[in-house]
Parts: sequence; structure tokens; C-alpha cells
Amino acid sequence: MSKREYWFEDLHVGQVLHSPRGITLDAEAMVAFARAYDPQPAHLGEETARDSQFGLFCASGWQTGSVSMRLIAETLPIARGGMGAGIDKLRWPRPVLPGDTLRVEMEVLEARPSASRPGSGVVTHRTTTFNQRDEPVQVFTSTVLMPRRPAGG
Amino acid sequence: MSKREYWFEDLHVGQVLHSPRGITLDAEAMVAFARAYDPQPAHLGEETARDSQFGLFCASGWQTGSVSMRLIAETLPIARGGMGAGIDKLRWPRPVLPGDTLRVEMEVLEARPSASRPGSGVVTHRTTTFNQRDEPVQVFTSTVLMPRRPAGG
Repeated sequence: MSKREYWFEDLHVGQVLHSPRGITLDAEAMVAFARAYDPQPAHLGEETARDSQFGLFCASGWQTGSVSMRLIAETLPIARGGMGAGIDKLRWPRPVLPGDTLRVEMEVLEARPSASRPGSGVVTHRTTTFNQRDEPVQVFTSTVLMPRRPAGG
Repeated sequence: MSKREYWFEDLHVGQVLHSPRGITLDAEAMVAFARAYDPQPAHLGEETARDSQFGLFCASGWQTGSVSMRLIAETLPIARGGMGAGIDKLRWPRPVLPGDTLRVEMEVLEARPSASRPGSGVVTHRTTTFNQRDEPVQVFTSTVLMPRRPAGG
């Protein structure tokens, strides 16, 4: 198999996965995302951000989350795709600034076979997104259904 | 004031706000978002979705969240912009399908002056995103800092 794919059996509690690369958010990408999804003054540019509650130009938390999802998909490519059951304790401890490069670390907190779906396992991770100064800018826990490896697979 | 802006004092516990419009997600927008942020088979198109864990083509949960943020910004335009402190209990009870039109309802669960920031209040909402059949497709609670109305404002 040229591209690694993860099945439920490939994960264990305590395992930590690191994203294979970082993604840089430049000012232009931040403004484009904000115009489409989160048109609040702190996210629309230096000018409008000055008088915002934040007082500085920073990325929408939903952009940080979406970019982190991209990194998650590259860090833990789930066979046949994951099914997100939910997200808890999503926090943004620091703003993401123009030019920041984001990476993720995922720690497996729980892993158990699904009671209701015999072909799946239920895995809970804590995903932390770091900037290039290794400061956490986002953290959340998520629970995802993962397929079990087929017999003989 | 031509555009309504909300200050902390404008909200009270139990208040329910409804988005002024819906946003429709067509297949093209779903694939574009998935390619950028969540390239898993269920979100990349009918073809790849068929053999996915979902078994059907549906929007990335992060797209549902981002589109909901756009609706939130139109439903509750916060003076000087909100500062999201965090999100809890984010769930996606039903998939968002191509052509679905989303709207949000926001209920104020808690509202109190901030102890650490005298100029701000802390408001917790439950935001539910519905499709055009009035079925919930996403729900979460979020806590947001809102500026207090200036004296004489």
C-alpha cells in the first residue's frame, strides 16, 4: 500500500501522532476565510481589527479548526474515512496571527470496539494545534468512528 | 444606527435569536471545501462517498460549523466583534446533504459580567443548525466575550 491508511486496530491509548507538515496562514487567506464565514472586524484585516475587542488581526477560530482538520486528515488518514461523532472542550488559548505556521499533535485518549456498529471502533483523541513557536493555539477532544480491519485484511 | 449591533446588555437568559436567512450548500461548494480542508471520501463527491464509512455524500462537519458561524455573525452581530472563549458539546446528529439549506437558532443559556475584564460580559449560547426540513444537523454551546455598552452609548 503506497498511502498509509489507519484502521481501528492500528491505534492504542497513549499513542501520539504528529502532522507530517505545517500549513501557513497568510493575511490574504485569513481575510478570504473571514469574508466567507466569519466577517467580524478582528478577522477582516489590520484596519478593522484595531478597534475590535481582540484589538489585533487574527484568524477566525473556525479557520484554525478547518486548517487543523486538513492536518488531521494527513496525520491520521482513516480507511474509508472517519465519522466524527462530536467535539468537546474546544478552546483557542492564543490568537493565530498572519504568517503563523500550524501543525497538530493527536493523542489517543480512548479506543474501544463499538457496541452498536460491529464493524467499527470508537476512538477519542485530544488534538492540539501549535504555531511555529510551539505554543498551543487550539485544543479539543473528538470522538470518531473508525472501521475495524477486515478479516484477512 | 442602520445595522443593529448587540452589546452585552442587549441579551438575557432564555432569549432565542433566529438567523435572518438560510444558506444553501450545493455539491460544488461541498467538494471545494472538502478539497481544501477535509479531503475524506464522504465529502469529496458521490463516487468516493459510496464506499466510505458514511456511505453517502455529505458536508464536512467543519463546513457546517463554518457556514453556521456565518449565520451566527448575521444573527448576533456583536459590537466590536465577539471573542470566542470556547465551544463544547459539538454534535452532528444528521448529515448535511447537497442542496440542504441551513439556518440557526441561538438560545442564551447564561449571561454575566466578566470578573477579569470590566468592559466585557460573558455569554453562553446553545446554537442549533437546522436543515430545510427543520431537522437539527448540528448543535453546540459556546461562550463568547461581548463588550458592555459604554456609558451614554
